[in-house]
Amino acid sequence: MVQCDYERMEDKIKTFSQFGDTGKGGITRFSLSEEAVAARREFVRRMEEIGATVTTDDMANVYATIAGTEDLPMIFSGSHMDSVRQGGNYDGILGVLTAMEVAETIVKEKIPHRHPITVIVWTNEEGARFEPAMMSSGVICGKFNKDDMLASQAKDIPGYTFGEALEKSGFKGEEKNRLNPSNTKALVELHIEQGPVLEAEGIDIGVVEGVCGMINYEFTFTGQAGHAGTTPMKYRKDALYAAVKTIQYLHDELDQLDGKLVYTTGKISAHPNIHTIIPDEVKITLDARHQDPEVIKQVLAVIKKIPGLVENCKVSYEEAWSRKTVSFTSELVDYVEKSAQEYGYTNRRIYSGPGHDAQFAIDLVPTTMIFVPSVGGHSHCEIEYTPVENCLKGANVLLNTILHIDKQ
Amino acid sequence: MVQCDYERMEDKIKTFSQFGDTGKGGITRFSLSEEAVAARREFVRRMEEIGATVTTDDMANVYATIAGTEDLPMIFSGSHMDSVRQGGNYDGILGVLTAMEVAETIVKEKIPHRHPITVIVWTNEEGARFEPAMMSSGVICGKFNKDDMLASQAKDIPGYTFGEALEKSGFKGEEKNRLNPSNTKALVELHIEQGPVLEAEGIDIGVVEGVCGMINYEFTFTGQAGHAGTTPMKYRKDALYAAVKTIQYLHDELDQLDGKLVYTTGKISAHPNIHTIIPDEVKITLDARHQDPEVIKQVLAVIKKIPGLVENCKVSYEEAWSRKTVSFTSELVDYVEKSAQEYGYTNRRIYSGPGHDAQFAIDLVPTTMIFVPSVGGHSHCEIEYTPVENCLKGANVLLNTILHIDKQ
Repeated sequence: MVQCDYERMEDKIKTFSQFGDTGKGGITRFSLSEEAVAARREFVRRMEEIGATVTTDDMANVYATIAGTEDLPMIFSGSHMDSVRQGGNYDGILGVLTAMEVAETIVKEKIPHRHPITVIVWTNEEGARFEPAMMSSGVICGKFNKDDMLASQAKDIPGYTFGEALEKSGFKGEEKNRLNPSNTKALVELHIEQGPVLEAEGIDIGVVEGVCGMINYEFTFTGQAGHAGTTPMKYRKDALYAAVKTIQYLHDELDQLDGKLVYTTGKISAHPNIHTIIPDEVKITLDARHQDPEVIKQVLAVIKKIPGLVENCKVSYEEAWSRKTVSFTSELVDYVEKSAQEYGYTNRRIYSGPGHDAQFAIDLVPTTMIFVPSVGGHSHCEIEYTPVENCLKGANVLLNTILHIDKQ
Repeated sequence: MVQCDYERMEDKIKTFSQFGDTGKGGITRFSLSEEAVAARREFVRRMEEIGATVTTDDMANVYATIAGTEDLPMIFSGSHMDSVRQGGNYDGILGVLTAMEVAETIVKEKIPHRHPITVIVWTNEEGARFEPAMMSSGVICGKFNKDDMLASQAKDIPGYTFGEALEKSGFKGEEKNRLNPSNTKALVELHIEQGPVLEAEGIDIGVVEGVCGMINYEFTFTGQAGHAGTTPMKYRKDALYAAVKTIQYLHDELDQLDGKLVYTTGKISAHPNIHTIIPDEVKITLDARHQDPEVIKQVLAVIKKIPGLVENCKVSYEEAWSRKTVSFTSELVDYVEKSAQEYGYTNRRIYSGPGHDAQFAIDLVPTTMIFVPSVGGHSHCEIEYTPVENCLKGANVLLNTILHIDKQ
């Protein structure tokens, strides 16, 4: 079977790791920053070198297209090039690099294909410099208002907007170039798993079925401040102890639900947060994710069972945000699975916990994703790592998937 | 029996509430601030008006002495005039005002006394502007190095030291004027309880036996960060959940110890404290206080039983600071109790949870304290309140106690 090239794959990873290199194994490559623009220029240079035609749309999303033998809709593949602060060399960028490697393999091996094959680079997936995350796919897929996005303020330069960064980047193009259902056959995004499952189970390829639904709640516990040395235990209204009791309750109850449920109390704050004062207000967050909306409903039922008064403290909560489960195009999911099997790669079906541009794209065009393992499950940090061998397996599955799609 | 005067007591409270008035019921009167110096001037003016001789020592502690009929050691009474930010009108200052009222009553009622009676004002008890708390009693009683204290940096003015504030105050005197065992008979400090016990039990006077021993520990839980959406529950090392389990364990175990034990987990911090990330490091504090060192030992035994690994997270802890139980001079404690009984005031023996200048003074001279109730147990806040009637009862007990001491 046709294969992508190990050395080219390795070279791509090494080259793009230089744009925003922190010197400590990772990158800081904020969207539309100097480093990100330099990475985009290298992308364009390399794609034009293999004969691609490059266009950009009004959100600076980049499209590099290798013509097909027939006048048919395009097959897209790619991801994003921006990173969080002190992020790694794989999140996002690997989806671009594997798509580039697939295109290069197709061109160099002269693999016949009927559909045009387009490598796509989304602008500002991370939202690390300009909020929100998945900004440009969100605009194109009708999730966000474009004017609001243009006014989004940079976190690193006071008063600097996304709109200004867009103008300055040299990558702002025309709205007519946007990803468009009328001339799109499919979109396949490869990404690192950002979790430990594939590595722990010794699996090469994650066949992504969709993106998990999630809810995020914020809880507030209101007690009464008091001096640590003067308030007898029986008179206390300790908001931190109320939070402790509630977190324990959530674990006890949620652990009884489906084993695939993940939930996290990631954030906590106490007031006045002084070691000699009984806390009078504590806030915690609860993030819960599952592919099955029924399980999310069960989580909500558990939350609603929390009494209004815990340890004499008032408990209140509100939904901060939520996301419905997104299911990818089943035909495409099957192609990914088939492709992995054809190479003899171990694979399993999996749902994505984090969000990706693909979850917005699915509203517009047939979409799916491919996961490769993240060593140690690390992501959004400098030690994020996927061996070249795994990256290459991902590229091969992407190549094979695109060729299967091309045949339809 | 001889009594202090309600209207004079009320006038003193009202007058001194103006120095640093926040306009919201409380005061901000940082040590040696303009407001604090104005309050000291009013103190000096009023004490001189009733015939007192005023001196100050090298830490700006102020001593206003009414001569006795014999050449005997002095009987001291007083407290501090500085406050925390947005503090109340009773913490500290009430000990000064009741001592002033006692002196005024003795002078105006021409009550014979053999010993000189001195009203003392300690400098910088709160440590709210210059750390540490109880700075000047600490220097005089050999707890703190004076040069270090003079170099203490103001929290409100960058680069401004306690030494500079001392020079500027006009209250810096000579070291020879310090409180001195050779010419001291006793020291009695009246203070608000700063806790809810006296009010809840309908008690007028707290006969303070000492200051509770305490320990303060800081715990660190080290887990592993991971994405909320990608890390299955079984792979998690959630440092916040480890902290939750440990706080629950502490409650379960410590609640079985003596009922007078108070313990507080007042401070918590989580890293990275992002709602979509499993916390990899959480820190909590544990403050525990009890008058009996044996009970504190039991608390330590409970801490030492915490396993090194909780919920797959590493647990470590260290003592941040501790204080041994301080017992006041039993003869003086008895006089306070007797004095309250003679007025028919309800009273109970009590240990102080918070620290006071008196806990340092006891190392130098015979010392005790008198507590009056704090409404709602509130302290270090603008709603701190003790009705004039209770303040007056405290002044009467102080007067009677001093007269009992004078007879010995």
